Formats: sequence, C-alpha cells, structure tokens
Amino acid sequence: MKIDVLTLFPDMFAPMTQSMIGKALDKGTVEFNAVDFRQYSHDKHNHVDDTPYGGGAGMLLKPEPLFEAMDDLNAQTPGPKRVILLDPAGRKFDHVAAKELAQEEHLVFICGHYEGYDERIRSLVTDEFSLGDFVLTGGELPAMMMIDATVRFVPGVLGNAESAATDSFENGLLNYPEYTRPATYRGMDVPAVLQSGNHQLIAKWRLKESLRRTYQRRPDLLESMDLDKDAQKLLREVKTEEHTKALEAKLAAKSSEND
Amino acid sequence: MKIDVLTLFPDMFAPMTQSMIGKALDKGTVEFNAVDFRQYSHDKHNHVDDTPYGGGAGMLLKPEPLFEAMDDLNAQTPGPKRVILLDPAGRKFDHVAAKELAQEEHLVFICGHYEGYDERIRSLVTDEFSLGDFVLTGGELPAMMMIDATVRFVPGVLGNAESAATDSFENGLLNYPEYTRPATYRGMDVPAVLQSGNHQLIAKWRLKESLRRTYQRRPDLLESMDLDKDAQKLLREVKTEEHTKALEAKLAAKSSEND
Repeated sequence: MKIDVLTLFPDMFAPMTQSMIGKALDKGTVEFNAVDFRQYSHDKHNHVDDTPYGGGAGMLLKPEPLFEAMDDLNAQTPGPKRVILLDPAGRKFDHVAAKELAQEEHLVFICGHYEGYDERIRSLVTDEFSLGDFVLTGGELPAMMMIDATVRFVPGVLGNAESAATDSFENGLLNYPEYTRPATYRGMDVPAVLQSGNHQLIAKWRLKESLRRTYQRRPDLLESMDLDKDAQKLLREVKTEEHTKALEAKLAAKSSEND
Repeated sequence: MKIDVLTLFPDMFAPMTQSMIGKALDKGTVEFNAVDFRQYSHDKHNHVDDTPYGGGAGMLLKPEPLFEAMDDLNAQTPGPKRVILLDPAGRKFDHVAAKELAQEEHLVFICGHYEGYDERIRSLVTDEFSLGDFVLTGGELPAMMMIDATVRFVPGVLGNAESAATDSFENGLLNYPEYTRPATYRGMDVPAVLQSGNHQLIAKWRLKESLRRTYQRRPDLLESMDLDKDAQKLLREVKTEEHTKALEAKLAAKSSEND
C-alpha cells in the first residue's frame, strides 16, 4: 500500500515511525510519504492561504497549491486512489471503514487547517471522513489516527495473526476485562476463574464479561448483533444480575437516607 | 492548565509543539509534560507488560508502573485532577467534552497499548473516553487529538477570539462553504453573492448553506436544535430545493435509461 499525505507540517508525521506504521514501513508492506504542499505556492512569501470572500475571521487554504500537488501525485502514480479529506461533515470513521481502506492500493490524505479551506478543494477528494464532533487545529492528527487504525488491517502488518481478531469490535462486542500479574495488587484480586486453568470456564467468563461491558457501556452495539443461543443465555444472566445490583444499590441508598 | 501524559513513547508527543498546544506552551497558558512510565518498572529488563491470566494472545500493561507513576504525580501536584483513559468502551469525545475539560486545572492522560492493560488500572482513572469504534496501536494519537481539541477552549489560547466561535458545531450547525481567491479556478466560480459586498445577503446565504450542509450530512444535529423563525424559513427553503433537485435527478436518470 502507498500512503501520501499533503500537509503544511510534514514533521508532525514523525510519530508514525513509532506506531504500527513503523513496523509496516520496515517490512516494506506500506510506503509512506508526507508532501509539504507549501512548495506549490507561487508567490514570493510562499502563502498558501488567503482571506475569505464575503469577509469573516480566519484565513482559508487557497485551491492552487493542493490542486497542483494532486496533479504531481497523479502524474507520478497514475492508478486509482482514494483521496481523503478530514472534515466534521464527513462519514464517521470506524473499524469497518478502516478495513475497507486497508484493501486499497493508494491512499492520499489532504490535511486541512481548522480555519478552513476553499470549497473547491472538495472536488479533489473521493472521501470525507470525520473522527467526531469536535474541531482540531489541522488534519494531521486525525490522518495519523486513520492511518494507524487502517494499516493494522493490511495483511502482513500485525506480527501476531491473532491480535487483530481479538480486538474490541472484532466480534462486535467490547473487550472483556484482562489481568496480568500480580494476582493481588493494592487489595485488588484477579478473578479466580482466570487462575483456574479451566479453558472452557475461562472462555465462558470472557464472553459473559464482554457482553456485560457492552450491555453497560454500548447497548447500541448489541441491537444489530446476531447472538447465538449460548450468548443469548449469558446476556439474559447479565441483565438479571445488573438489574439486581441496581435494586440493591437503590435499597442501600434508601437505608442510609433513613439512618 | 497542567497536562501530564503517562506513556511509553514520550517522543510521539513532539507534534504537540506544532499544533495549538505549541502556542499555548509558548504563552505559558498550558504546561505540558510527557512521563515515560517505563522508568517505574522494577525488573532489570524494564518490562512493563506481562502475559494475560487465563491465556490468550498479546501482552498486557502491568498495574505497578502506572500506579507508581500516579503516586508520584499526586505527590508532586496534590490538587484534584481528571485522569483520562482512552478506551473503546469510554464516553464519546466531542466539543462538549472538550469545553468541559478546558475548565480543569490538571489533566492526566494514561496512554494504553492496543494489546490491552490490566483491568485494575481502570481504578486510577476518573474518565474513560473513546474517539470512535476502531482500534489503535496506542493511546498517544487520541490523547494528542483530545489535547488539541481541548486546549483551543482554554481562555487566551486562540489568538483570534472569533475563531473558536465560528467553528463547525459552535452554533450547532456544520460550517458553510468558504471561498478565497481566485474568483474562478479550473472552471469553478466563487458564488456571486460572496462577491457582492452586501453583508446582509452574505450572512443569510451563509446561514442557509450551513443549514443545507447540516440537513444533507448530519440531519441528527438539527433534531435537537432550537432554530429561530428566520432559520426555520431558510431550512424549509433548503428542504424544498433539495427535494426538487432529487426529483430532477431521478427524472434525468429515467430519461437516459429510456434512450
């Protein structure tokens, strides 16, 4: 896979070498390049932005430097590419989008500026993505996040083939609680079942706790899922247990009120 | 505001100096510190992770180094702090959360590892946040994004007081299209109204196009909004125009089918 980013701050992409993409670069699975599109400005002060038509605060990215940077990219690598703009109006980025992008030969990220960009720049892009309802200084950090999340799904990138398959979301559920040594730390114990060596019981406990966490934190994820009979039974148990816990907590609160 | 991050990769935070936080650091409005919690490991190989109880792929962050790093932070800066963990099970981070965190005196980010961490580490945190339904190599990139989005709301950070107020979401709507010079580029024109100099017409056009983009891309944002009479009228116009456009497009598709 080839990844190009068009940015005014190519140095911001240094952390990429310390994340997943670093390993992929070393293996040659991914080729990464940050293009400073300021080199495509034509005035002597190297301006890439200008004031908005109609007035208002802030400067906007001009169209020419980005159009010419894309011309060069298209000349150097003619094939099809997904050209991605990070924008609050875009499609929500998620693991489904990450897997989809991981199938592509060539991704190009256009990193805008929080103050805005000329609307015509949108005509260069094939995809607009959003990381959420908030505003950032620029598109560099979200581009790095998207690249990190995507590259994990490029075949041959993750060392351990199991790792991507046991992530949160991979089976549609949030991950179960995990524990490592020591067995007791500051009064908190590792659940006994995990120390039992009984793999069937451990698998059942993990599925149940995945269901519990998803039910408590992200019940929306359960709505669209096809749970098998065993999982449905565990989910019913979880719901009963949580309901009982809630009643007990209310009762305890009432009792202490009456004290 | 004081911001500490507990991370195994402090160098990954170098881009912070080139974003919004860079300006805030220069002004002294924000104090930022990246703590390598590997220094709190006690074995001779400086391990911070260990295998999971109950078996399975991947290594988990051990509890001790993070607990001891927090002990030190609490000893150095005793006051109240928000201790934030990035986790897919967390509350969705958005501009409301960013504004909320911008009011705090002291934020601490715990950057986990995608392979996971000992469940007891959660007992250290006051807030769990998620950037979306995808999995990353580590918490460093999302922590930087949250810091960037948050620091913009710390008073005195943004140079131009107007800039944060005209962002997407600030009035509950997506931003209107913006244009800068040249007036015509590769056959694409800047809308005439923006060149008219009529500020009343420009303001009306911008509000209408904000409503249009929000209606087209994020109709969910409109549901919870209290639009005034003028905005309601413009939204009705937008709906009629978009409905007409959709009918025309269908008709054109039918006509070309029949050719």
